[in-house]
Amino acid sequence: MRALHWDGHTLQVRTAHPDPQLTERTALVKVAFAGICSTDLQILQGYMGFSGIPGHEFVGTVVDGAEHLNGQRVVGEINFACGSCPWCDQDLRRHCPNRRVMGILSADGSFAEYLTVPPENLHVVPESVIDEEAVFTEPLAAAFEILDQLHLQPGMGVLVLGDGKLGLLCAQVLHGAGARVTVVGKHPDKLTLLRSMEIPAALLSDWRPHPVDVVIEATGTTKGLSLAIETVRPRGTLVLKSTVAQEHTLSLAPLVINEVTVIGSRCGRFPPALQALARKHVAVTPLITATYPLADAIAAMNRASEPGVLKVLLQNC
Amino acid sequence: MRALHWDGHTLQVRTAHPDPQLTERTALVKVAFAGICSTDLQILQGYMGFSGIPGHEFVGTVVDGAEHLNGQRVVGEINFACGSCPWCDQDLRRHCPNRRVMGILSADGSFAEYLTVPPENLHVVPESVIDEEAVFTEPLAAAFEILDQLHLQPGMGVLVLGDGKLGLLCAQVLHGAGARVTVVGKHPDKLTLLRSMEIPAALLSDWRPHPVDVVIEATGTTKGLSLAIETVRPRGTLVLKSTVAQEHTLSLAPLVINEVTVIGSRCGRFPPALQALARKHVAVTPLITATYPLADAIAAMNRASEPGVLKVLLQNC
Repeated sequence: MRALHWDGHTLQVRTAHPDPQLTERTALVKVAFAGICSTDLQILQGYMGFSGIPGHEFVGTVVDGAEHLNGQRVVGEINFACGSCPWCDQDLRRHCPNRRVMGILSADGSFAEYLTVPPENLHVVPESVIDEEAVFTEPLAAAFEILDQLHLQPGMGVLVLGDGKLGLLCAQVLHGAGARVTVVGKHPDKLTLLRSMEIPAALLSDWRPHPVDVVIEATGTTKGLSLAIETVRPRGTLVLKSTVAQEHTLSLAPLVINEVTVIGSRCGRFPPALQALARKHVAVTPLITATYPLADAIAAMNRASEPGVLKVLLQNC
Repeated sequence: MRALHWDGHTLQVRTAHPDPQLTERTALVKVAFAGICSTDLQILQGYMGFSGIPGHEFVGTVVDGAEHLNGQRVVGEINFACGSCPWCDQDLRRHCPNRRVMGILSADGSFAEYLTVPPENLHVVPESVIDEEAVFTEPLAAAFEILDQLHLQPGMGVLVLGDGKLGLLCAQVLHGAGARVTVVGKHPDKLTLLRSMEIPAALLSDWRPHPVDVVIEATGTTKGLSLAIETVRPRGTLVLKSTVAQEHTLSLAPLVINEVTVIGSRCGRFPPALQALARKHVAVTPLITATYPLADAIAAMNRASEPGVLKVLLQNC
């Protein structure tokens, strides 16, 4: 099959990569669309020491291995849990210490014609959700994860730092949940997009920090993190939404003095995201910058790494 | 009066320092004992840019300015709030942005014969609590603050990193609250003291990290912080109990991947600490390394800065 492959040094589109091997515990999925995430770009910088087929956002169709799902349009949760450890027993499969992670850790991902996924990780896509929306389920679930972790009260002030893909999704989710959201970013076009959704947005250069209940750090930079620490109010909450391999140099004393709660936030449950897409509570297609055929995956990765670019999709066509 | 004075460059015991000026909003307290805290030592390194009389732990007697308290033995909360801002209105006086802080920020402290304190900050010491116990109320309240911030469930595993004064107080408070506490430190004598209280304790050199529900970081070092991040379990809680001026260089990615909650924790309410002292739930006098007369305050500060030393008291005699 055709697949984008990273061997730890070189990225190449292979046209005769071996098909994934179906096992008793997996379903075979034919990919329709896959989305490129910043984590995929970081993998090319060495993040997680991954080699294989990257990609962890997709929508596709089950073609084998899970009778009850055959022919169904699905999206898939990315953490492949062992199912038999104390974490799995506590329904914390996303934190299973033995987990493999699609396109990130010991499991091939979605930048290919086919991939295998444990059937329990698959969710059927509602009919009203088109493929180009469904492919956002994984990052949208990561935005909804904030609502699982934080008791967001109506009217709370929320500052989203960063106008990248995740920042725009978090802003929509928290705005939809009744918070008073402001996004601060660097890209006038993205801020215009937010304002069209009635979400206040400001250019970093025009904005002056003032204390806010909740700050979502979605820049993944040390500067963003420092700004977040400076801006969150005493007894407020700072949500870390970006995984970055880099080390930060910063003082944590303000977190102690102001008794701030910092919440690390990663993947989320898929059902709230699928429901929001089905109900049209979130607009994701405006976030698509470009779509490339899988054959042009390297050009797509390059495009995704350009500043200011939002979601780049790969289409299996 | 006699007082220890720090002018930003030089530390000296003054014998003719002006007496504190009583105002309508303060009570005059004659200090009996004052405790030296690590924060006092950091002030001499430039922390908070403070100059004046340091010290924020004391027990003393009200001698003027608050009729209902005159002649009473008291301890005092260290944050002097404005009383008229939104924070004060929300009963978050400890976070009042206009606050002065005893011996730390724009207010003289307790390393003196007398100090002035707003009467609403004072708490009467129960008769059954001796002076040498009462002088621990402030740091003990800081340990109890953890129970106000964290829902500690009986049997939860708690690792306290650091066997300094605050580490030993936190360990006792959390052990008393029903947690399975282990302390990891560097000083065999302190670990022996903990074991005499039936609290498991291990030398850092003998100890191997394994995932734990809650980690209390009470070392104030980058190494301790990194170890805390490494040890806290996925979805666990890391409590930052040390304020240090230094910057840390570290990766925060594990906090995101493991969805850890980090809680900055500072000062606490005094009543739970006074109650614990009155009920003999906490043993604080074993933490006293030495007591010096106020006249020898510089020698006392030097002693307090030696490795392995626990609480050094100043006595106003």
